[in-house]
Amino acid sequence: MKLSLNQATVKRASVPEVVDVCARHGVEGVGLWREPVAEHGLARTADLVRSAGLTVSSLCRGGFFTGHDQRLDDNRRAIDEAAALGARCLVLVPGGLPDRDLPAARGRVAAALSVLAPHAESAGVRLAIEPVHPVFCADRGVVSTLAQALELAAPHAPGVVGVVVDALHVWWDPALEASVAAAAPRIASYQVCDWVTPLPADVLLGRGLPGDGHVDLVGLTGLVAAAGYDGFVEVEVFNEEVWARPADDVAADLVRRHATGWEPVVDGGHDRLPVSP
Amino acid sequence: MKLSLNQATVKRASVPEVVDVCARHGVEGVGLWREPVAEHGLARTADLVRSAGLTVSSLCRGGFFTGHDQRLDDNRRAIDEAAALGARCLVLVPGGLPDRDLPAARGRVAAALSVLAPHAESAGVRLAIEPVHPVFCADRGVVSTLAQALELAAPHAPGVVGVVVDALHVWWDPALEASVAAAAPRIASYQVCDWVTPLPADVLLGRGLPGDGHVDLVGLTGLVAAAGYDGFVEVEVFNEEVWARPADDVAADLVRRHATGWEPVVDGGHDRLPVSP
Repeated sequence: MKLSLNQATVKRASVPEVVDVCARHGVEGVGLWREPVAEHGLARTADLVRSAGLTVSSLCRGGFFTGHDQRLDDNRRAIDEAAALGARCLVLVPGGLPDRDLPAARGRVAAALSVLAPHAESAGVRLAIEPVHPVFCADRGVVSTLAQALELAAPHAPGVVGVVVDALHVWWDPALEASVAAAAPRIASYQVCDWVTPLPADVLLGRGLPGDGHVDLVGLTGLVAAAGYDGFVEVEVFNEEVWARPADDVAADLVRRHATGWEPVVDGGHDRLPVSP
Repeated sequence: MKLSLNQATVKRASVPEVVDVCARHGVEGVGLWREPVAEHGLARTADLVRSAGLTVSSLCRGGFFTGHDQRLDDNRRAIDEAAALGARCLVLVPGGLPDRDLPAARGRVAAALSVLAPHAESAGVRLAIEPVHPVFCADRGVVSTLAQALELAAPHAPGVVGVVVDALHVWWDPALEASVAAAAPRIASYQVCDWVTPLPADVLLGRGLPGDGHVDLVGLTGLVAAAGYDGFVEVEVFNEEVWARPADDVAADLVRRHATGWEPVVDGGHDRLPVSP
C-alpha cells in the first residue's frame, strides 16, 4: 500500500506546508481536513494537490448525525468539497449520544446515510462510515464496531457507502479478522496509528505513531491487504509530542516505519498488569 | 433486585465501617475487595458479615491471567477466600496485553479458567469472568464483550464459571440485548455505575453514580431481569468526588436511586457533539 499523510498528524502545518512535506518525502497521498482546506481555499487546495501529483486519500470529515440537528446541509457541503478535491472518500464520524437512547442514535446514522447517499453518488464521492472506539461512544461515535458499520452500509452500493478501518478504533475487536474479511468490497480508507499506554489525560490524544504501541499493525495490515484493499495506508495521529516535532521529521519517520511494514518500534513485551484502583 | 454496596464505592471506609453503613441503610448485600478483607482479617470479616446478616454479592478480584505469570496460586487463594466469605462469586478481571498478540492473551484466559474451574467447583465458589470495556483492553482486560466472555465460560458448568454484567463495561455493545439474553444462566453478578463525560484524566475513575451519566440503566436492568437474574444489583463506582463524601451520605443516595429503578438523575438530553481535535 502507498503511504498517505493525514494532515492532522502534523496539525501545525498549513495545507501548502503539508503538500510540500509530502512532495519532499515521496509521500503520494494526503488526508485533508475541511477546516484547513477552507482556510487555504477549496479551489486553490484542489489545484495545489493536483499540480503536486498528490492523491487525496480522504477528506475529514462529515457525519455527526446523531444530534437533533443531523447536519445534513453541512454534510452535503462536505460531499461537494470531497468532489472538488477528488478525494477517495469522505470520512463520516457517526456522532455521539445526545441522550440515553443508543439504538435511536444509531438509527439516526442510518437515516442520514439514506438521505445523503444519492447526493454522494451523483457527486461521485464515496462515503466512508468510521466505526469509533467505544471509549468515544457517548461523545463522538455511536457506531462501535466494523460489523455495525457494515450493517449501516449494507443498504447502499459499496462504491457509494464504504467503511473506514482505523486501527485505533477497531484493534481490540474480537471479531476483527472476520469483520475485515466481510468488509472487503467496502474498505474505503485504511488508517493507522497505535494504542499507547498509559493514556494521556485527554484520551482523544491517546494515539502513538504506528509501531509505538500495543496494536499488531503488521497483522491488521495483512488482513486489510488480504481483503483486497490496494488503496493508501493513511497515518492519522493526534499526539502533542508528534505535533511538537517538525513536519519534515515526522514525515521522514513515517516513511521509515512504512518501509518496514509497520514493524513494532518499541518493545511492548513487558508486563503491563495494572494496580488496583 | 436487592441492593449491594461494593466497598470500592466508599473506598475510604474500612470493612467494619462498610458493614455498619450497610446495616444502617438496610443494604442487604456487600461487594468486598481482597486487600481490605486481608487487612481486617479473613475469618473476622466472614464472622462480621455473617453476624450482620449481609450477603457477600461478590469478592473482587481474581484474574489477571495474561502475563507470563498467570497468577494461578494467587487465584487459588482468592477462590478459598471467596469460599470463606460465602461470596456469591469471585470476579475475574482478565488482565491486559503484555505484548501485541491479543489472540494469545485471550487464550491464556481460557487456559487459566480450565486450571482453576475444578478448584472453584470443589470449593463451592462460582467464578465470574468480567468483560472489560475496550478502553482497558491493553492494560486491564483483553475480554472485551459479553459474547466473548460467554465463549470463554462455555466449556464449564454455568454454576462454576459465570460472567459479570457491569454496565460500565458493556453498555456500548451493539449486541448487548442478544448477549444478555444468551448469558441468562451464567449471570453471576450485575454491577451498575454510569458512563460520564467528559472523562476525568484517569479514565479508570470515569464512573458516575447510577443515573448520573449516559447509560440506559433502566433498560439494561430490564434486560438482566428478563434473563432471569434475581441476584443483587451491586453498585461499584470509582470516583474521587464520591470517595470524598461520607459513606452514609453515599449509601443513602444509592438507596434512593435504587428505589427509582435507576431512573436518570441528571438530564443527559443535551447535545454533546464534540469539537474537532
